Amino acid sequence: MIDPHHRNGAAPVLAVVGVGLIGGSFAAALRSAGAVERVLGVGRSRRSLQEAQELGLIDAAVSLEQAAAEADCILLSVPVGTTQPVLEALRPHLRDDTLITDAGSTKVNVVQAARAALGERVGQFIPGHPIAGAEKGGPAAASAELYQGRTTILTPLDENSVEGRLAITRLWETCGARVITMEPDVHDVVLASVSHVPHLLSSVYMWQVAAAENSDLRMELAGSGFRDFTRIAAGSPEMWRDIFLANRDAVLSEIAEVRAALDRAEQALQAEDADKLQDFLERAALARRFWASRSGLN
Amino acid sequence: MIDPHHRNGAAPVLAVVGVGLIGGSFAAALRSAGAVERVLGVGRSRRSLQEAQELGLIDAAVSLEQAAAEADCILLSVPVGTTQPVLEALRPHLRDDTLITDAGSTKVNVVQAARAALGERVGQFIPGHPIAGAEKGGPAAASAELYQGRTTILTPLDENSVEGRLAITRLWETCGARVITMEPDVHDVVLASVSHVPHLLSSVYMWQVAAAENSDLRMELAGSGFRDFTRIAAGSPEMWRDIFLANRDAVLSEIAEVRAALDRAEQALQAEDADKLQDFLERAALARRFWASRSGLN
Repeated sequence: MIDPHHRNGAAPVLAVVGVGLIGGSFAAALRSAGAVERVLGVGRSRRSLQEAQELGLIDAAVSLEQAAAEADCILLSVPVGTTQPVLEALRPHLRDDTLITDAGSTKVNVVQAARAALGERVGQFIPGHPIAGAEKGGPAAASAELYQGRTTILTPLDENSVEGRLAITRLWETCGARVITMEPDVHDVVLASVSHVPHLLSSVYMWQVAAAENSDLRMELAGSGFRDFTRIAAGSPEMWRDIFLANRDAVLSEIAEVRAALDRAEQALQAEDADKLQDFLERAALARRFWASRSGLN
Repeated sequence: MIDPHHRNGAAPVLAVVGVGLIGGSFAAALRSAGAVERVLGVGRSRRSLQEAQELGLIDAAVSLEQAAAEADCILLSVPVGTTQPVLEALRPHLRDDTLITDAGSTKVNVVQAARAALGERVGQFIPGHPIAGAEKGGPAAASAELYQGRTTILTPLDENSVEGRLAITRLWETCGARVITMEPDVHDVVLASVSHVPHLLSSVYMWQVAAAENSDLRMELAGSGFRDFTRIAAGSPEMWRDIFLANRDAVLSEIAEVRAALDRAEQALQAEDADKLQDFLERAALARRFWASRSGLN
């Protein structure tokens, strides 16, 4: 059983479902902090499991049933669309004191899936989302330092115990992350706004340039502004398709807000209203500069 | 007089109107190549002129009248909105063999201004746009290397002589730039597409995030994708206001095309059409990756 009062939130046996970058780094960080004694890995790919074991990220590859029966804490780092079947497979074998958390990048649909799969055991599931990623995935990319200085968002359920929340918080803090909590729907809107919508807009813009009749000439004259603005559009189409579908409502509603802002800028330009246009650009520039000074990013 | 057959397109006396980054770098590059003997500077700011002289970018600060009377070649690097009054002031004093070019970032309106100001002397004006910039402006930021490996677009007029076009081409090539020519309206559409529209979209998005009720929370959770996508939104509001107004028609027409592409992506998402959405994202990702591999930028 996890001891929520242990300074590291120690979980003697940890299981990670999905042994790639996210799950592997969670295991590596907790192991290097001495917060876990044994790590079990579950995965669909034999090769990833073997690689994770060779890298020392996990001690053994097991089935979902074994993980449910043996683990004190289970982290799901699987595509959000598979949360429900994975939890359904875990449920019949779960101990009463096992805690489950996840790393899914949307939360409203994950909470729905957890309620559907776990029923009265849903209190054992504490939904989470570590805001971390890297250029590369897979076990080889995992690192005990991935979560250092990053933020993990928890979206706890009313059914979660205080001890359960505390234990999961401690584990993420042991990984070096700052933990904040919010409601699932707020999480989804905020992530739609700062992550999903920029990706969609960058892709839409890139698509339009590529579809233009003289796209070769355009691309030939594209410079550093174009480079920065379109960098995220090169990301994995499969992964982003799933994120957009999983967070569809929030993405569509944020896109509507961006369209309204675009209307405003366009009207000022249409009317050649220099003052209004400058005011608009100035607010945007000041907000971006303020963000850079506060975030330390640039 | 400029000798178009000289391998450097030598102009014994060069005048630059506007002695900041663009004009100062042109002067520095031509001087370091031995293509000019004397450089005259014209500017509104006494301080910039003094600084340019101390830095050795110009030999003397003169009036527009003097520049017109003495120079073999005159480069205008002034806000595009002031092209017409500057050319009007130059006209009465211009020699027959003086060539004028400019560095304005829009060309349809510059060509109109030149026709209005120069009348039958418009053949002496060869419109241009060096695609180069830097984080900082002013004479101190000027460098003989600024144009190395960059592209300068010329949008010649029917009235330009072959020798005049050749001479201006040689001067830019002497600066290290590759010179390409296109029609003014094509230039404006292409620049709207790869430079002005990304800036407008980035600013619109940034404005919308900053205007949201929970903008603090959003900005706190913004990461590296947000950083790249919004970097250009921090640029000078005055400068970009002028660019948008000067290239209004092309910007509005390109924005309409981006909206049509957004409609398409949104419809696929609305309908939860995973295949269509993935196909859309894939085209964008492939186009971006292809661009990176060809441009050498990333």
